[in-house]
Amino acid sequence: MTRPLEIALLGLGTVGAGVAELLQRHAELLAERAGGPLQLRRVAVRDPDKPRDVDLDPDLLCGDPTLVAADPEIDVLVEVMGGIEPARTLLCEALRRGVHVVTANKELLAKHGAELREAALQGGAGLHCEAAVAGGIPIVKALAESLSGNRVQALYGIVNGTTNFILTRMTQDKVGFAEALKQAQDLGYAEANPAADVDGDDAASKLAILAGLAFGAEFASDDVYRAGIGHLTPTDIQAAADLGHVIKLLAIAKDRDGQVELRVHPTMIPADHPLAAVHGAYNAVFVHGDAVGDLMFYGRGAGRMPTASAVLADIVDAAQDLRRGVSGRIPMPSRRLAVLPMTEVTSRYYLAIQVADQPGVLGAIATVLGRHQVSVASMIQKGRRDAPVDLLFVTHQAVERQLLAALEEVAGLPQVERIAQVIRVEGSEEA
Amino acid sequence: MTRPLEIALLGLGTVGAGVAELLQRHAELLAERAGGPLQLRRVAVRDPDKPRDVDLDPDLLCGDPTLVAADPEIDVLVEVMGGIEPARTLLCEALRRGVHVVTANKELLAKHGAELREAALQGGAGLHCEAAVAGGIPIVKALAESLSGNRVQALYGIVNGTTNFILTRMTQDKVGFAEALKQAQDLGYAEANPAADVDGDDAASKLAILAGLAFGAEFASDDVYRAGIGHLTPTDIQAAADLGHVIKLLAIAKDRDGQVELRVHPTMIPADHPLAAVHGAYNAVFVHGDAVGDLMFYGRGAGRMPTASAVLADIVDAAQDLRRGVSGRIPMPSRRLAVLPMTEVTSRYYLAIQVADQPGVLGAIATVLGRHQVSVASMIQKGRRDAPVDLLFVTHQAVERQLLAALEEVAGLPQVERIAQVIRVEGSEEA
Repeated sequence: MTRPLEIALLGLGTVGAGVAELLQRHAELLAERAGGPLQLRRVAVRDPDKPRDVDLDPDLLCGDPTLVAADPEIDVLVEVMGGIEPARTLLCEALRRGVHVVTANKELLAKHGAELREAALQGGAGLHCEAAVAGGIPIVKALAESLSGNRVQALYGIVNGTTNFILTRMTQDKVGFAEALKQAQDLGYAEANPAADVDGDDAASKLAILAGLAFGAEFASDDVYRAGIGHLTPTDIQAAADLGHVIKLLAIAKDRDGQVELRVHPTMIPADHPLAAVHGAYNAVFVHGDAVGDLMFYGRGAGRMPTASAVLADIVDAAQDLRRGVSGRIPMPSRRLAVLPMTEVTSRYYLAIQVADQPGVLGAIATVLGRHQVSVASMIQKGRRDAPVDLLFVTHQAVERQLLAALEEVAGLPQVERIAQVIRVEGSEEA
Repeated sequence: MTRPLEIALLGLGTVGAGVAELLQRHAELLAERAGGPLQLRRVAVRDPDKPRDVDLDPDLLCGDPTLVAADPEIDVLVEVMGGIEPARTLLCEALRRGVHVVTANKELLAKHGAELREAALQGGAGLHCEAAVAGGIPIVKALAESLSGNRVQALYGIVNGTTNFILTRMTQDKVGFAEALKQAQDLGYAEANPAADVDGDDAASKLAILAGLAFGAEFASDDVYRAGIGHLTPTDIQAAADLGHVIKLLAIAKDRDGQVELRVHPTMIPADHPLAAVHGAYNAVFVHGDAVGDLMFYGRGAGRMPTASAVLADIVDAAQDLRRGVSGRIPMPSRRLAVLPMTEVTSRYYLAIQVADQPGVLGAIATVLGRHQVSVASMIQKGRRDAPVDLLFVTHQAVERQLLAALEEVAGLPQVERIAQVIRVEGSEEA
């Protein structure tokens, strides 16, 4: 029973080096918690001769991931190399052989989750993915285990640190998007090509996984509607503040009577909402369950040691299952849920409409909105006399399709210069 | 394999009725998640004839908890009756027979945790206590499982909703303690005798359990230093705001090189700290792990359905272990850690000292503080000329023993009217 469990690591980049470091630093603590020693047996790296900042026996390194993954002595295979291939093939083969897999690879899970689960079922192996979403925040276990007594009704995530950093800078320093993005790049929070982050694609992949766990169903990244933050201006940030709100890029999943809304977009939330206090590169996931009510999980969504922390929790879970001789845990979808088309989603909306300041313009717009079942909750008039002014509206709940039709008609009104901005609003009393 | 698991319930009060309701409402979902149906077999109540607002077959009710707990057919015993006896005896006996136990009883765990764990080990049964601390927030599982790869260095909890409600009212409405307490009582957030909440005793019991899980050691409620909130005034709340801080009743545990600080007391924290955004009756636990960094878990710390949600998560965990035929999970202390006496704790301090406004008074006080190794970080002078004034100090890190000695000497200075307030400060850069 006290034979060490043999761990193989695919990848020794940022997260992989963190995992190797924690296995060393906490060897004793981990042995207690896992019911026996954890032994790092082999590490697949691209270049075994490259200097590294983690103190590892060079004999452990191997340039061929296939050799490492196929080692018949390994108990747990940890994949932190990223990308689809060869990860997909290697993990599926290992799972079918009964090797427990821990992965941080959100693209792989979002694209080939079903295949991985199938392989895990065949082999009786566990498939663990705490590190794939929201870094160090234990949201995967929370959704898969801690909310068993609930039907999750809604989930709101700040799951992309880059965009949250940019929006925090725009809000606190009142700078524009381009300047905030440059700060993020200078500090290493944003890539040279930031598209995957600022366009919402990264958040969409994560939302597909989170919603799958929350609703016990299977979703793909492509099921998620997405809009990025590149079009937001200091004017929008200020207007939100004037309304007692802040703008966050939220990943939103809602259960609507058996259909699911899945969407990533800039969202106005009240300034006293717990998600509004999530600043900089931090992440948070806010969940509403029918029994538990509101819950929020907050922490570092990326980075070497926070992500390695999530990987280690999975390794210890896998080790305990191995020690107890039971087959592994696999988060399984148990329901089929259709994704509601974005046009059928209901939301409240913030609208900034630039108009010529003529008598009757407000009435004309309100009439058009009303004809499309879009009801106005509040209105503020900005700007000065004799100049084009902004009318800022917040609507009650409206159907996106009707809102879009209304806006098309509003844009055609003679007194209307342009629809300057549309931002969805969440999180106040009126759900 | 699809035989229903038989659940017995001790207690059908607020939480018990919530558990019974969820077992009915989510029967299908729970059967999926637990690997088979969950059957409520018997419920021990004080008075089987009392009318109830949960729709239960009256034949399930039984006035004798001993009969219910000793039923040889039960798989999981859920204890939500509270109190030490008969819960202690009944749970220990059931655990020794191999019945998995789910309990929400924090007093029992804090006082007799070792005995319960011993019984669970003997019987190979699981001992689950997610509902005993912080209601619906899954902090027990997070500490026991999700932070395996970390050494927890500090934990800060808002774990008493009554006091957080009172402090929120004092902060937002600028009312005094007595009025805020009365509001809490009117709304059902505070008992007629609020001592256990406002004096910090309830938070101390919870901290003993949380620190035990975080550090893998055994602590008793009596190990926890406590100071309540009854002596806080609107002046203190305002002074905190002037310093960019808020006052919260925090339950604090810190690992100090193998010794542990355990303390519950009013604490000033920066207004932009995530814990500062925890309002009203909500709870939150903020954890710092050496790998994961800062994490926070936020939600409802009490109430029928949130607490029942935590109980259900434990029931499903127990059911999965039973289905897989493995012995139960028992959070075991693995280390022995001494509790640092409060006099040896280091902290930063806010000091409000009422003085006669004479030249030299600041110098006299600063000299005394300095002689006792208490270094002043900032000072504000309040009040008007020719009247007694308050000097407000914030110190750097100081040892409590030296701070107390300094204050005793300061109180004896001729220009000093009285030491009006002392509040510990946490959460800014200087750890």
